[in-house]
Amino acid sequence: MKLFEIAALLGCSGVEDSIEITGMNTLREASAGEISFLSDSKYEKELENTQASAVILPSSKAHLLPKGVIALPSDEPYMSVALLSKHFSKPIRSSEVPPVIGEGSVVYPSAHIENGASIGSNCTIMSGVYVGADAVIGDDVILYPNVCIYRDCRIGNRVMIHAGSVIGSDGFGYAHTKMGEHVKLYQNGNVVIEDDVEIGANTTVDCAVFGSTIIKQGSKIDNLVQIGHNCIIGEHSILVSQTGLAGSTTLGRNVVMGGQSATAGHLSIAPFTTMAARSGVTKSITNKGVYSGFPLMEHKMWLKMQAKLAKMLES
Amino acid sequence: MKLFEIAALLGCSGVEDSIEITGMNTLREASAGEISFLSDSKYEKELENTQASAVILPSSKAHLLPKGVIALPSDEPYMSVALLSKHFSKPIRSSEVPPVIGEGSVVYPSAHIENGASIGSNCTIMSGVYVGADAVIGDDVILYPNVCIYRDCRIGNRVMIHAGSVIGSDGFGYAHTKMGEHVKLYQNGNVVIEDDVEIGANTTVDCAVFGSTIIKQGSKIDNLVQIGHNCIIGEHSILVSQTGLAGSTTLGRNVVMGGQSATAGHLSIAPFTTMAARSGVTKSITNKGVYSGFPLMEHKMWLKMQAKLAKMLES
Amino acid sequence: MKLFEIAALLGCSGVEDSIEITGMNTLREASAGEISFLSDSKYEKELENTQASAVILPSSKAHLLPKGVIALPSDEPYMSVALLSKHFSKPIRSSEVPPVIGEGSVVYPSAHIENGASIGSNCTIMSGVYVGADAVIGDDVILYPNVCIYRDCRIGNRVMIHAGSVIGSDGFGYAHTKMGEHVKLYQNGNVVIEDDVEIGANTTVDCAVFGSTIIKQGSKIDNLVQIGHNCIIGEHSILVSQTGLAGSTTLGRNVVMGGQSATAGHLSIAPFTTMAARSGVTKSITNKGVYSGFPLMEHKMWLKMQAKLAKMLES
Repeated sequence: MKLFEIAALLGCSGVEDSIEITGMNTLREASAGEISFLSDSKYEKELENTQASAVILPSSKAHLLPKGVIALPSDEPYMSVALLSKHFSKPIRSSEVPPVIGEGSVVYPSAHIENGASIGSNCTIMSGVYVGADAVIGDDVILYPNVCIYRDCRIGNRVMIHAGSVIGSDGFGYAHTKMGEHVKLYQNGNVVIEDDVEIGANTTVDCAVFGSTIIKQGSKIDNLVQIGHNCIIGEHSILVSQTGLAGSTTLGRNVVMGGQSATAGHLSIAPFTTMAARSGVTKSITNKGVYSGFPLMEHKMWLKMQAKLAKMLES
Repeated sequence: MKLFEIAALLGCSGVEDSIEITGMNTLREASAGEISFLSDSKYEKELENTQASAVILPSSKAHLLPKGVIALPSDEPYMSVALLSKHFSKPIRSSEVPPVIGEGSVVYPSAHIENGASIGSNCTIMSGVYVGADAVIGDDVILYPNVCIYRDCRIGNRVMIHAGSVIGSDGFGYAHTKMGEHVKLYQNGNVVIEDDVEIGANTTVDCAVFGSTIIKQGSKIDNLVQIGHNCIIGEHSILVSQTGLAGSTTLGRNVVMGGQSATAGHLSIAPFTTMAARSGVTKSITNKGVYSGFPLMEHKMWLKMQAKLAKMLES
Repeated sequence: MKLFEIAALLGCSGVEDSIEITGMNTLREASAGEISFLSDSKYEKELENTQASAVILPSSKAHLLPKGVIALPSDEPYMSVALLSKHFSKPIRSSEVPPVIGEGSVVYPSAHIENGASIGSNCTIMSGVYVGADAVIGDDVILYPNVCIYRDCRIGNRVMIHAGSVIGSDGFGYAHTKMGEHVKLYQNGNVVIEDDVEIGANTTVDCAVFGSTIIKQGSKIDNLVQIGHNCIIGEHSILVSQTGLAGSTTLGRNVVMGGQSATAGHLSIAPFTTMAARSGVTKSITNKGVYSGFPLMEHKMWLKMQAKLAKMLES
């Protein structure tokens, strides 16, 4: 899609450049040929180093762009991004190349492997499994019945995913009109699951808006867990059943989250942190420790609070 | 089924009428040829206007019925309804008419479309999807792998349902014997999903006992959400991941429910209400605003309470 | 596998016995030919009556074993059990015997029934269902689309399981190395679901480590519920949507758990106990009653606490 076509689509006048734009990305991740955006002023300082060819942003910020980066002025940059994201979304099927199945792998007849996908050696791909276009599955992987891997996702070696889990479904992102309608931000990223990860049954891991949602090596995730778009789960972390992570939260290595715990989005959790069952995390955690409650506090403070509440109850 | 047969089934003596009864419904929704019931005295005033042909109710309430409506006296009306509901439940398969697939639609080979169902044009019905008898799917719909649409459900245009979600599973309703056993109330209603709705992965939406569970136009529902029987979700509402709604709750338009929030059953939530993550709603909300906590309170009060609790902890 | 081979595998010197070991089990459940273990000293008193042929345990406890039971000393018994569990895990497919389908049962073409499984009479096994090796399904069972029954599970008569539910996925159990890595404890047990149980959509029930996870007769389980390994759900219990039970918890008969409630592991809940929605149960309940809150308290105390908190807010 040429830049002047994008400008016309978004209603930006005066942009005549015919450079070919191949995709969208964040200010930090974008490279030449990609378009980026500034919809939240807290990322303003990332403008100066962006490698994007063009940036959607409020006209008042256009002067902050490096020389050679083209401004696409917008009163509602996030809405412009949503409108444009549809044009860069990939179709469900896009490849003519038959899937590659490695030596020793068993694929049940009712599994559906799209063109462009590849499956390593010694895998077991059970009944009803779906593997999307251009997805890459490593060696010695077991996908239990009815697991769904969306397009472009990458699954490492010795990964085990239990029945019904969904990897790479769209993140939950919309721009909102003044009339209260929601315009879908198409999710063009993927999910990367590293080696030796185990995922339970009926868990969901959303793909990234741009880039990757990442579950790092050796992490273990229980049943009915929700992992939002662009989360990063550190190595050897443990997420117990019914835990939920909102988008763009990063866990360090060896983080433990108890059952039914949850984090808000855009947080950073220190390595080796433990959050007890039912914890509700609304702020980043910089010091490892054991935490509880909602709002979150040190576990020993939570115990103290329960003691005080019990005493209040007796009075 | 003839009325005297129903009376015999329920052990109501003295009912000889041979009128054909075609179904069951609520007092308010029932029409001629249907049977209704009074199991909770708070609906007593709906007796006088019911269009039902017959009503199951305590004998002490029979005099409140309009002229011409036949009483089926029962000491345990809800148990009688449960016993009768089985006889009006529809079989999984009931049609000889092959499904209709609209122009431009792609149906993967492992999808199963029952007889009597219809799918509009330009749809993508992916692997492992199930579409039940007499279900109606609109145009430009995407059903991702292993989505299950139970019989009689209706899906609007431009609806997108992510992998593994279940639309129209039975609501959770039972009558209880004195011995503590549970008798299933067969759920004979459906789910109606209007245009431009998006539903995430592994979410569940139960069908109505009678009538419809409704998700109105433009609403967006995240992963692992539970929507109980007979709920109505207003236009352009947003339900974040792991939210749960018990049966028969109605949300107005543009309601937002944060992650892991929940409502009890039979509530009414005002349009444009926002409930923060983890909210637990046990009473109806008549004034729009931002609410938090369990029990629910205005969000600013919740913040105040947290401040007071923190102070208590320091003392 | 011969005992001296196991000893070599685990690095226990001096064990030369060539007795054939056929499986692993708990101290209480093990019989001759099985190996057991002591990894938590609270089970120490079960050593004296164990019928196991050999026991993995700290060398300091070896003198507590009955005569004739062979000790396999280990500094990290739980890790030894995890390492050994892999060798006793059953393959996904292990039988050459074609599945048996009872009279009057309908099996949709896209369902996958493994060899060694049997399905009773008058069942409906819908599209995309998976029934694992040696699983036994009773009579008059309905498995809705994409239900997955793992190997060895046993489903009683008149059981109904709604779409997408997973029965018998691996419990969430790992031994942890000093480097913070997690070694899978292979889950070699099964799930037993007794007669007249109904299970909602997208619910998950994990198999037992050893022995059985059991859902007793007449229990009703809603959508998106998590039941951990080795739980026992008493007769006619009711678990409302999004409830979660950690491993090895036992509910008595007619227990009710409200929506989004949860229990920790290894608890015992008295018969006829009701836990309100959102209850969080961290200790066993010995007296039946109605309970609420997290931490759990009598419901009337919870109401009193809410009143006191409301009063505090006004001050």
